[in-house]
Amino acid sequence: MIKNPFYTSEHFQGKYESYEIGSLELEEGETLRGCKLAYRTFGHLNAAKDNAILVTTWFSGTGKIMEDVYVGPEHALDPNKYFIVIVDQIGCGTSSSPQNTPAPQSMAKFPKIRIGDDVRAQHKLLTEKFGITQLALVTGGSMGAQQTYEWVVRYPDMVKRAAPIASTARISRHQIIFTETLQEALMSDPAWKDGWYEDGMHVRRGMDRMAKIVALQGWSQEFYQEERFRTILGMSSLTDFMNSFMKAYFEPMDPNALLYEVWKWQRADISRNTGGNLETALKSIKAKTFVLAISHDMFFPPHECEADQKLIPDSQFRLIESKEGHFALNGFEPKYMEQVDACLRELLSM
Amino acid sequence: MIKNPFYTSEHFQGKYESYEIGSLELEEGETLRGCKLAYRTFGHLNAAKDNAILVTTWFSGTGKIMEDVYVGPEHALDPNKYFIVIVDQIGCGTSSSPQNTPAPQSMAKFPKIRIGDDVRAQHKLLTEKFGITQLALVTGGSMGAQQTYEWVVRYPDMVKRAAPIASTARISRHQIIFTETLQEALMSDPAWKDGWYEDGMHVRRGMDRMAKIVALQGWSQEFYQEERFRTILGMSSLTDFMNSFMKAYFEPMDPNALLYEVWKWQRADISRNTGGNLETALKSIKAKTFVLAISHDMFFPPHECEADQKLIPDSQFRLIESKEGHFALNGFEPKYMEQVDACLRELLSM
Repeated sequence: MIKNPFYTSEHFQGKYESYEIGSLELEEGETLRGCKLAYRTFGHLNAAKDNAILVTTWFSGTGKIMEDVYVGPEHALDPNKYFIVIVDQIGCGTSSSPQNTPAPQSMAKFPKIRIGDDVRAQHKLLTEKFGITQLALVTGGSMGAQQTYEWVVRYPDMVKRAAPIASTARISRHQIIFTETLQEALMSDPAWKDGWYEDGMHVRRGMDRMAKIVALQGWSQEFYQEERFRTILGMSSLTDFMNSFMKAYFEPMDPNALLYEVWKWQRADISRNTGGNLETALKSIKAKTFVLAISHDMFFPPHECEADQKLIPDSQFRLIESKEGHFALNGFEPKYMEQVDACLRELLSM
Repeated sequence: MIKNPFYTSEHFQGKYESYEIGSLELEEGETLRGCKLAYRTFGHLNAAKDNAILVTTWFSGTGKIMEDVYVGPEHALDPNKYFIVIVDQIGCGTSSSPQNTPAPQSMAKFPKIRIGDDVRAQHKLLTEKFGITQLALVTGGSMGAQQTYEWVVRYPDMVKRAAPIASTARISRHQIIFTETLQEALMSDPAWKDGWYEDGMHVRRGMDRMAKIVALQGWSQEFYQEERFRTILGMSSLTDFMNSFMKAYFEPMDPNALLYEVWKWQRADISRNTGGNLETALKSIKAKTFVLAISHDMFFPPHECEADQKLIPDSQFRLIESKEGHFALNGFEPKYMEQVDACLRELLSM
């Protein structure tokens, strides 16, 4: 275990709770013992217990960014109307993760987690802790959308509505290559020591290399060409943006946590539930589903997201315009959240 | 110096000549002494000396691929009509390069080369060796197009027609980041030894990492999603494609040569000739110019190429359709060369 202040409530993450769901038998065969989920709630569960919304989290993120950007009385995810539960994914640093799990499952011995493991753990939290048996909505962006897709396939009768944002239901081959380059950039740093480093900061060279590759596809070409790192992020040059934004973003995080998340991201595939048949999986979805894609997304191009949507029975496709590409998810521009809120409000009214 | 059979006529490159242009004073301030250009010619220079075509080369390529794919009686670049000179860029392994230059300019001490240095050296070869004072056409793809752009700005009265294929006139910010990730992938290999390795094969881990990042953007997302590595390249899986095509392609090459080319690629900018003003540079072009872009190119997106074209006085924009993205340049599909030939024939008839 490593003490990393970044993942604590006091230093960065804001107030969150932790729920121990016990032993989680994982899809890969190992059992994660004493598995904990970090979560935060907003609003109140009504008597009928039918106003619950589950919000999932993306790569390198936690509930903090979802709370800050997506939840509030001014948003579709309004705590005055809904009981909103944001659950941090396993391996992200706050929920059970390589750096906060005791031996013998610590660090490089932390077991491999799949999207399906997260969703089963979240189901346990929602049913056991809150007695929730119906979700008014499940939503999340990127890896959060991978979890959203998994939810509607795995628990079709529990989810009334779903809004996966900026992800496909199955990882694309291009994303498989992309995520490999992230892993290689980090793991090639000798200081990573096969996952047994003493301090995440020692692995900064590998982390920096990874940050640059993330930057390559996370934003759009227009973001760079129009120097939106100046206008949107207030960075003074490309180098300033790379050092003081991209590398700075990843610097306090745990290298192994990022690697475990990338491993999971790379393998997201709802067709694991239907013998490898993606069409069957998508057609099995009962939730009223809005598939949201971001116009300039180089991770999950809109036409790939739309191809999924077309196979989901009760669904609509919505294109969110943003030159920030995939990272528009972070809500840098008010215009982004206005579009997402409009979609979610419409979906919630149906 | 390192003996690398890959760059010899016998082993891979086919027949090529070498012309020593002597000392080349470089834009970065150093002088490359005994600078040699590798070149190959096809057809005959007519008496009027007005049927010469210059073909330039791209990153990791030499005249071999240009000869094989672009030149022949069935192509627009027809040796029965034109005197075609293909010149390999400096630093590519055949022309003066880190691995074939003697001390004190060998290996990591090889001086940094810019696109403008190549073009001045090519000018010397064409005028001194062949007495050519007018070029019917300059064309090349990718870094070859960077040289093409440099030619028409630097020698506006010598070039009658130009066809830059799949490149912008100035490197984009996104490409700056991309090329940095290539450098970092390779240079982070301890076996690179700051450029003083004993054998390029020792640096394979870094080269392999680089190959994967090249693959990420060199092809299109559709290329991966539609498994065109099977249909177009005959590879049996994504891993087979990565190992037996992408990594295999780079494996015999010299790591320093690739790094010097990337350094040059990263800094291509015709506005260096006009005090940093790109518009002035593009408007100064006198050549009849066809700007060719590839529909699915993630290196040089069509709309960025077209933005350049709009500023060139006597120019037209042509979109080449290919789901191979930037690497369509290699002519994997007959459909690609048919489109390029049609464009070049039309341009040459004007």
